[in-house]
Amino acid sequence: MTEKRYLMTPGPTPVPPAVLDAMGQPIVHHRGPDFVAVLERCLRRVKEVFRTESEVLLFTASGTGGMESVLSNLCSPGDRVLVVSAGYFGERWAKLASAYDLEVDEVRYEWGATPSADDLAARLDELGGVSAVFLTQSETSTGVVADIQALAAVAKERSALVAVDAVSSLGAIPCETDSWELDVVVAGSQKALMTPPGLALVSVSDAAWAAQKRSTFPRFYFDWERSRAAQEKLDVAFTPAVPVVIGLDVALGLLLDEGLETVFERHRRLGRACREGVKAMGLELFSPDEDRSAVVTAIRAPEGIDSGELVLTLRDRFGITLAGGQGPLKGKIFRIGHIGYYDIFDITTALAGVELALTEAGADIERGAAVSRALDAYEARAPV
Amino acid sequence: MTEKRYLMTPGPTPVPPAVLDAMGQPIVHHRGPDFVAVLERCLRRVKEVFRTESEVLLFTASGTGGMESVLSNLCSPGDRVLVVSAGYFGERWAKLASAYDLEVDEVRYEWGATPSADDLAARLDELGGVSAVFLTQSETSTGVVADIQALAAVAKERSALVAVDAVSSLGAIPCETDSWELDVVVAGSQKALMTPPGLALVSVSDAAWAAQKRSTFPRFYFDWERSRAAQEKLDVAFTPAVPVVIGLDVALGLLLDEGLETVFERHRRLGRACREGVKAMGLELFSPDEDRSAVVTAIRAPEGIDSGELVLTLRDRFGITLAGGQGPLKGKIFRIGHIGYYDIFDITTALAGVELALTEAGADIERGAAVSRALDAYEARAPV
Repeated sequence: MTEKRYLMTPGPTPVPPAVLDAMGQPIVHHRGPDFVAVLERCLRRVKEVFRTESEVLLFTASGTGGMESVLSNLCSPGDRVLVVSAGYFGERWAKLASAYDLEVDEVRYEWGATPSADDLAARLDELGGVSAVFLTQSETSTGVVADIQALAAVAKERSALVAVDAVSSLGAIPCETDSWELDVVVAGSQKALMTPPGLALVSVSDAAWAAQKRSTFPRFYFDWERSRAAQEKLDVAFTPAVPVVIGLDVALGLLLDEGLETVFERHRRLGRACREGVKAMGLELFSPDEDRSAVVTAIRAPEGIDSGELVLTLRDRFGITLAGGQGPLKGKIFRIGHIGYYDIFDITTALAGVELALTEAGADIERGAAVSRALDAYEARAPV
Repeated sequence: MTEKRYLMTPGPTPVPPAVLDAMGQPIVHHRGPDFVAVLERCLRRVKEVFRTESEVLLFTASGTGGMESVLSNLCSPGDRVLVVSAGYFGERWAKLASAYDLEVDEVRYEWGATPSADDLAARLDELGGVSAVFLTQSETSTGVVADIQALAAVAKERSALVAVDAVSSLGAIPCETDSWELDVVVAGSQKALMTPPGLALVSVSDAAWAAQKRSTFPRFYFDWERSRAAQEKLDVAFTPAVPVVIGLDVALGLLLDEGLETVFERHRRLGRACREGVKAMGLELFSPDEDRSAVVTAIRAPEGIDSGELVLTLRDRFGITLAGGQGPLKGKIFRIGHIGYYDIFDITTALAGVELALTEAGADIERGAAVSRALDAYEARAPV
């Protein structure tokens, strides 16, 4: 038969048929009334999902483009900034800051660690203040979800601006932009927002706007003010990825119809189900076994098995795309993304695929234990 | 009945059903084998359409994002550069160069003028050399197509790097990147390339790579080297707009199947048909009445009629989207784009719509003369 495909990476994620349908319609002009109506509704929905009253800017770019806009708009040459990193994407903040010749300090952890607010407070006190702190809510490379509320609080107490990479987490787990006083939050269309890649979304607080006014880096395409001025008139500064905006609008409607709290609870239950299933197979979790880890589950490959090989086998034999490990974790872990258009049967499919592949490779796994345990955990509706 | 829609602006342009279909398929991972095969073919086809052996870099961004990458990669702070401008997009090069604090000289014409190689040569000689010259092949705001071959030649003779905005022209009219020695050519997915917006394409010559190595501007997302390193491994530096890349691959296949020379001839004939039809209605052309004007036809609104109102009437009454005038030409001209997925019946539809709307507004136009003349001109297959 024609192979069925299962996309289960932490991004891009599967896209609902209604979103694909909307994107497959004949193209419209980005300054015509059809698109303006979509843009107005989309921007309103985006703010609801960001839980903010501030403007959220849309850029046709990957999440990294949105992250770079933070450096070039929030900072000026020579600024001292602090990056908290514990994996690939935290380190990306540091690389971006270095590309902009900032004075970059880091609270740098081993990949897989969970950043601590106490460590951040201590470093900030030691440094005697920085202009901005860069955080990662969901470290996609390790499956760790940081306590952004606590981290942001210690940074704000010390008068630093707070910028958060929420690319893989926004829309899957709570990210309270306004009530946690996050100055900048960056998200992407292709993760929990259930839309193909192509758009970065960036919320900007009043304090961040004030910093932007002082910033002197050269910039044009990612200039926040240029985008805001356009969006205020329901316009766009530059021709956007029209179909992706149209898709995002539909996807956000689906999310808000489900209700954000319901969406978050679904993700928590999927995370629990995945972790319990993994443990029932006798595998060791790499990401923390806690409720917050509701974005991606990272799992250690069993002794003697290369996780990259396992990922290839799953893809070639069963059409299941999981993610391997990045950087120092290459070959050592594999990752199941469970965000966005994802339900319990996706979890059981992923677990069943892993079970079949590992059994073939000689592992001794009790048939079906992972799936049974995952269903139990999902139905329990509370931490188990 | 449900209104039919006719998109006839110089971008975004109509997208062929085969491209929409490909884009409406379930999303695939950008590092999986399905996408890698598409990327490999797409990059090969892009080079064919650019007529270059050099690498063409893909960025998820609007054309302006691609243009900004030229400033941040080709130049360094304080560089003296020369911009040739005669409309909105020429002036955008100048704005970008100013945002990067370059020493910007301009050969600046009134909107609607056709830049002259002699003027450029004289200014370059007067200045005693600049590091780079910025040109616009098709000035979308006026319908003027510049003689890039001649302009580039005088710049190259004077040892300047040449960067060309071919966003609305590439794939509609000849742009011989290698044989005209163009160091950088920027195109966009959403014009003659018959794909929705979302991708900028940038070709980079050996000399441009050498300049890039010396360049010191901060950059990350638009860094050419980062993109090249990824593309050489059939990878992407950052998550791309997956469906747009997939659509572009299909669209480029359609273009190359038709044959580039056939495509160019079709555009020349469409341009002629449009201009002859416009004149048969008794209207005055704003863009030059010459074969090279094969991208967009700009037309003066008749005395007493605001072109913006005309565009709104066409849209609201007939579902036909044309473009109005920008900047100093607002209210004065309207523009019919005829690039990409566009045939003679689109021309006759546009002309018939304009005829109906102007007649309603009280103009005295011979019924059907525009359409008859356009068909004649199209069939003549040679300049008339």
